[in-house]
Amino acid sequence: MQSRTEKEYRECEKFLEVHYQRLLRELLEWLKIPSISTLPEYSDDVLKAADWVREKIKRIGFADVSIISTAGHPLVYGEWTGIESQPTLLVYGHYDVQPVDPLEEWESSPFEPVVRGENLYCRGASDDKCQILLVLAALEAWIEVAGAPPVNVKILLEGEEEAGGRSIERFVHENREKLQADAALICDTHMISPDQPSLICGLRGILYTEISMSGPATDLHSGSYGGIAPNPLHALCVLISRLKGEDGVINIPELHGAGDDMSEDEIRFFAEDPLQIEKALKEEMGVDQFVGDASYPPLQRVGIQPTLEVHGIRGGFVGDGAKTVIPAEAVAKVSMRLPAGCDPDEVFTWLESAVEKNSPAGHKVNVRNIHGGRGVSVDPENLFIKAAGAALAEAYGTEPVFMREGGSIPVAALFDSELGVPVVLMGFGLPDDGAHAPNEKFSLHQLRLGMKTVADFLGLLQNKSKELSGKE
Amino acid sequence: MQSRTEKEYRECEKFLEVHYQRLLRELLEWLKIPSISTLPEYSDDVLKAADWVREKIKRIGFADVSIISTAGHPLVYGEWTGIESQPTLLVYGHYDVQPVDPLEEWESSPFEPVVRGENLYCRGASDDKCQILLVLAALEAWIEVAGAPPVNVKILLEGEEEAGGRSIERFVHENREKLQADAALICDTHMISPDQPSLICGLRGILYTEISMSGPATDLHSGSYGGIAPNPLHALCVLISRLKGEDGVINIPELHGAGDDMSEDEIRFFAEDPLQIEKALKEEMGVDQFVGDASYPPLQRVGIQPTLEVHGIRGGFVGDGAKTVIPAEAVAKVSMRLPAGCDPDEVFTWLESAVEKNSPAGHKVNVRNIHGGRGVSVDPENLFIKAAGAALAEAYGTEPVFMREGGSIPVAALFDSELGVPVVLMGFGLPDDGAHAPNEKFSLHQLRLGMKTVADFLGLLQNKSKELSGKE
Repeated sequence: MQSRTEKEYRECEKFLEVHYQRLLRELLEWLKIPSISTLPEYSDDVLKAADWVREKIKRIGFADVSIISTAGHPLVYGEWTGIESQPTLLVYGHYDVQPVDPLEEWESSPFEPVVRGENLYCRGASDDKCQILLVLAALEAWIEVAGAPPVNVKILLEGEEEAGGRSIERFVHENREKLQADAALICDTHMISPDQPSLICGLRGILYTEISMSGPATDLHSGSYGGIAPNPLHALCVLISRLKGEDGVINIPELHGAGDDMSEDEIRFFAEDPLQIEKALKEEMGVDQFVGDASYPPLQRVGIQPTLEVHGIRGGFVGDGAKTVIPAEAVAKVSMRLPAGCDPDEVFTWLESAVEKNSPAGHKVNVRNIHGGRGVSVDPENLFIKAAGAALAEAYGTEPVFMREGGSIPVAALFDSELGVPVVLMGFGLPDDGAHAPNEKFSLHQLRLGMKTVADFLGLLQNKSKELSGKE
Repeated sequence: MQSRTEKEYRECEKFLEVHYQRLLRELLEWLKIPSISTLPEYSDDVLKAADWVREKIKRIGFADVSIISTAGHPLVYGEWTGIESQPTLLVYGHYDVQPVDPLEEWESSPFEPVVRGENLYCRGASDDKCQILLVLAALEAWIEVAGAPPVNVKILLEGEEEAGGRSIERFVHENREKLQADAALICDTHMISPDQPSLICGLRGILYTEISMSGPATDLHSGSYGGIAPNPLHALCVLISRLKGEDGVINIPELHGAGDDMSEDEIRFFAEDPLQIEKALKEEMGVDQFVGDASYPPLQRVGIQPTLEVHGIRGGFVGDGAKTVIPAEAVAKVSMRLPAGCDPDEVFTWLESAVEKNSPAGHKVNVRNIHGGRGVSVDPENLFIKAAGAALAEAYGTEPVFMREGGSIPVAALFDSELGVPVVLMGFGLPDDGAHAPNEKFSLHQLRLGMKTVADFLGLLQNKSKELSGKE
């Protein structure tokens, strides 16, 4: 068996090289569809992007691919099962993308994909369309070479990841049997650097909220009322500075100590920074110094500790000129990242209390739970993870490191809790991809290596199917 | 003389009653022009509003009315001089208006003036078009009745008041001779209540700034960088809460004690609130309690003390949905109201130091001086003020009170310092007009009484011309 799969894998590699330009052309076609899930005016485009990828999955040979309607944007689901004695891999991705503002900072139009140097620039390139396509390319290669994927595959793509939609949660909950698998593969993260492959062994959860502050019954003129009028914008500033001060300490007592339960290895890794990640992070951010809670090492702060960030404050006047309005209401968009063990709904109640306690007098305040998702942690000793590690080592010529990722992929926690499967978080993004920023890009070098790595990973699963699946 | 003017004034009253509907129609025509000076896309409308009022002034009989180009929006200037042995009154107003956002809170379209009950609703109704028109109506009445105004009149209208433009400053500075007058009349303020006429004996100055805070070189994803990344939005919250805390004390040491030099009468008035203005203020604002520096009585806080208000914070994401961006930059629009004695440019340097000192580490901060204007204080014993008081007492049947107004009219300070003339701040707005808010309105009752009051005031000036002007 060993030699046959090895030979087939080499043929897959060749297929990916020969068909690279055509695969890239297909990718550009998909990237052009502005599937911004959070803005209602793009819902048709979100549908178009779903249709496009459904067709693509059918084209590579999956017989059974469907668009599944939900209360929000649809899911795309396809499966190739019935391959005897082989484990089943559940592949996840999201075909929706972030909004593009601030538009003026894009060097090229966000939905006109363009290659500059070794990078492909487009909204959704890194997050997550290129990463989905490289998995589909690896599957296509196997199907062309061997007539079928080396393992049973279930593909589940959603269109609400960037909008915090919960349709997939409901679908997974209601279809636990159908989605049963031995492991899940999520390509929606990034590596440390182009030379250092990495696998994610932990993700933070998220809680996204809106804090509304009310003051006067109507907008007021600061000349006539300034000095006695409640100003909701000012009250939000006071509140937010109390929820987290310059020292970076989050003023929610219940959270203190959360995220501290790490292995000795991790504690050492965070403290010693053997890969000099801190230097790279400073360069990516373009800063000379880190901010935040100095009682934890920077890598721990960014990888596992809770955060509290304000993403925007709405209210009053922000145009050119000099309107001196005191607005009746102002709203802050505030998120928290959460260590794997935290329940976002519980943290929301803690946040609510902290907001209540710290809001300035003379105002009314309300916190709205926009959405939440649990974090996740994965055992690096899991055999699927080891196969992924082997494939990365082969493609990159160096062993991968196991990392905590500060971002949140609620679906990883969902697969973990609902399906009880280990989640392989093997991403091919790079730290400077600018996933939610202007000029988002994906490295073409990563695209090529990613296709090969996933193809190799699939082959390795076949070779070790019984061992991996723990069956028989 | 006494009886002739009295008779003529009664004829003026009659004229204003007979022509009221026509005057109102003209007013609606002017109000429809969206002369928003601060938004470049409305510059044609600003010009149209200037043209409209130039024509109006010519139509009532002024021979010499011109549009004066400036670096910004034009001035409208007309004069009727050469009336022997009579004092000269300089009339000021502004034909530009505030922006209309938030548009969704308007009950009727902001530039489709509509009468509901006893009020006329339109952007610019109270601030300042109705108030200019009532002065022009009073002049028209006199010209119709007596063939000429009772006193020499110079009319100077600007189109940059709401944009903080400085063209009028330059024009007044360069035309001190031309603009020489015995007093200035500014109808751009409001009375305490419809039953209680008031005259303004003091205005606060203003300093309008933008505080820009920079953090990372580019927008960042809070998952990948939250915990170590500088967040300019959060830094602005911390900074603003330090510049003024919940206690309302402004953290600029140089300002402490500013505004404390009041007469015993004023100190008593502020402390005792004999007219129960505090109750009315609470009702206007729709609040149960005042905020602010409790070491001063509310009326003093709102009338004379310095303020520091944030009017808007730009940066990040404020749309629907859940974008988790840490923006590279954020900007707060922050204004200060200043006691009459303060020089806004000097206060700006104090603010700059305070911002520098209180900005969180890891960020770059910059303060921009958008515009400033000095406050002003007027001697209640001045004879022009006394004439205004007599006219108000006649029209309203009760003596006016002398008030400090918290708003800023930089032109009052300009007339004071450049022309050395006493400034009569006789406004007919009402506290609930919502000058800069949605559903701005002007009371038709005030319109009618305002026309008559100004006509009476003009007549009283003629009667007492020598005494008032202090000439011979």
